[in-house]
Amino acid sequence: MKKHKAKFFMGAVLLSASLSAIAAEPLMQQAQELFKPLPADMGTQEFPITPEKVALGRALFFDPRPSLDGTVSCSRCHMPALYGTDGLPKAIGVKSRDNPRNSPTVLNAALEFVAHWRGDRKNVEDQAVRALIGPPSFGQPDLAAAMKKIEAIDGYPAMFKKAFPNEQNPINAENWGKAIGAYERTLVTPSPFDAYLKGNARALPTLAAAGLKRFISTGCTACHNGVGVGGGMYQKFGLLEDYWKQTGSTKIDEGRFDVTKDPADKYVFKVASLRNVAMTPPYFHDGSVATLPEAVRIMAQVQLGTTLAAGEIEEIVAFLNSLTGTLPKDFATAPVLPASSFKP
Amino acid sequence: MKKHKAKFFMGAVLLSASLSAIAAEPLMQQAQELFKPLPADMGTQEFPITPEKVALGRALFFDPRPSLDGTVSCSRCHMPALYGTDGLPKAIGVKSRDNPRNSPTVLNAALEFVAHWRGDRKNVEDQAVRALIGPPSFGQPDLAAAMKKIEAIDGYPAMFKKAFPNEQNPINAENWGKAIGAYERTLVTPSPFDAYLKGNARALPTLAAAGLKRFISTGCTACHNGVGVGGGMYQKFGLLEDYWKQTGSTKIDEGRFDVTKDPADKYVFKVASLRNVAMTPPYFHDGSVATLPEAVRIMAQVQLGTTLAAGEIEEIVAFLNSLTGTLPKDFATAPVLPASSFKP
Repeated sequence: MKKHKAKFFMGAVLLSASLSAIAAEPLMQQAQELFKPLPADMGTQEFPITPEKVALGRALFFDPRPSLDGTVSCSRCHMPALYGTDGLPKAIGVKSRDNPRNSPTVLNAALEFVAHWRGDRKNVEDQAVRALIGPPSFGQPDLAAAMKKIEAIDGYPAMFKKAFPNEQNPINAENWGKAIGAYERTLVTPSPFDAYLKGNARALPTLAAAGLKRFISTGCTACHNGVGVGGGMYQKFGLLEDYWKQTGSTKIDEGRFDVTKDPADKYVFKVASLRNVAMTPPYFHDGSVATLPEAVRIMAQVQLGTTLAAGEIEEIVAFLNSLTGTLPKDFATAPVLPASSFKP
Repeated sequence: MKKHKAKFFMGAVLLSASLSAIAAEPLMQQAQELFKPLPADMGTQEFPITPEKVALGRALFFDPRPSLDGTVSCSRCHMPALYGTDGLPKAIGVKSRDNPRNSPTVLNAALEFVAHWRGDRKNVEDQAVRALIGPPSFGQPDLAAAMKKIEAIDGYPAMFKKAFPNEQNPINAENWGKAIGAYERTLVTPSPFDAYLKGNARALPTLAAAGLKRFISTGCTACHNGVGVGGGMYQKFGLLEDYWKQTGSTKIDEGRFDVTKDPADKYVFKVASLRNVAMTPPYFHDGSVATLPEAVRIMAQVQLGTTLAAGEIEEIVAFLNSLTGTLPKDFATAPVLPASSFKP
């Protein structure tokens, strides 16, 4: 937990600096200091985007056939129609097995500093690979079993060859991760708030602008900042009050503690990105809260010790609505998959 | 079985008339007598299409939340990426329950004279309603339970009101069926073969035209005729030879007999429409055959007593490829669903 603690304290320092400036500086300038508009894509030097990788990754993303029983694709828990989520409190995967936590959206997910609620996946590539053998995800006994299924579908061998032209045997789990990762790194959703951050003051309706101000002054930006409006650090859920007393969670999830066994990590989760949050209920790691106003109320209460008035919650929700972006065309539109089949 | 027998004999009469004309008539004229191009949509007087019904039906089609565990939407077994199928031999529904038969595509399905392999659903509307309470489909204990889930999603009450403006309580199962039916009645996939039937001789590549000729002369058109190239009658699967000896089916399905208990209905199924058949493996009511050439070989063998040569199969497959149409834009592209949620 060393690294994220450092980040958190840095965030706190930045926050107090920006808080002291609230009165003096215009709202847009404050926002530009705290947040950043979305990039055109999320490719990196380590994980570069090529059209061939993206085309392959997009097909694989929508294809249920590599899973144990042929019913689970990435898109089953990350549905375009539900903004890259499944609408469930906790995901249900292959053989109807329960997942321990809520499916976060894949939209803009590659911006986050780690993947999964507890940060036990390095990045979207790592997540995609390990989903193949996650018992409640794709459920394959090993990576080779998944690759065998992919190899048996006419069309994929040629697509892998094109995406990874210099490799002798390109159909392997690492390349599955790289291809799906390349696709996911294209899934950015520019929103009215991005237009605002780029200088268009009219992009935020009046209530949303009031909500932005309230979001900053309440202290939400201590954690929900940067390009993802979150997704950049860990934080304890329930800093001032046990979270389950407010959320009504039926199971107490100790969060990152289960990964690190460090007592300081008890109830620590990755701070969720708030991009498209209005479109991705239910909320929190366990999907225990159904509506956005209630989620806002609880966060202010248990993280900041603030009891927000109904009107204040309404303002903040209006701001959060401005984080709803446009679905990428190549996400809203399903690819046509290679048609050949096999007996699962 | 009275009605479909009559249809079959009529079909046979038409067939022998057209067979005798093969030598004399040009291929296109024969085709125009046996088949019909797709209509613009499949609305009827009984089931009219309105934009409001279609918009509602499209949202419902993609929404998993009305199902028992929140994981099954119409689109789970009728995925756009797999041309309205699920790629499985037999569908797997809610709670990972096995369905008894293969999921047929929803594309052009409203053209068929009955729904489901055994004709035990009247039409697409009836199918949609009864899927809600099908234990391996949506799995709801009763229709009211499904309606309760829909009612709880913000956005749907207003959409039902708009789609059924003169009704006091429009959220009911009949309207669920009508809305999804209206949407499905827009799912037509014009293909090169339709262009050919409309008079464009160049729309069929040479091999496909040879395949069309072979398809007619082999006798496939006895059953696979009309606008759906099938989907207009019942027929015994295995007229001349037990089907399971060729398909390797692990379970002998007695077909429509289980519905009517009429011995004449043993092994009788609805003749499948061959539109988009190249995109919708695996084949037959039990998905027992993985590839199209093998399916063509078996059909000629067990239905017509003809052993096709490899080249003849290749011709027919080329013709069948010409039945692959364009995915409707509002099918390939997922709608954005009302975002509010509830605990399933």
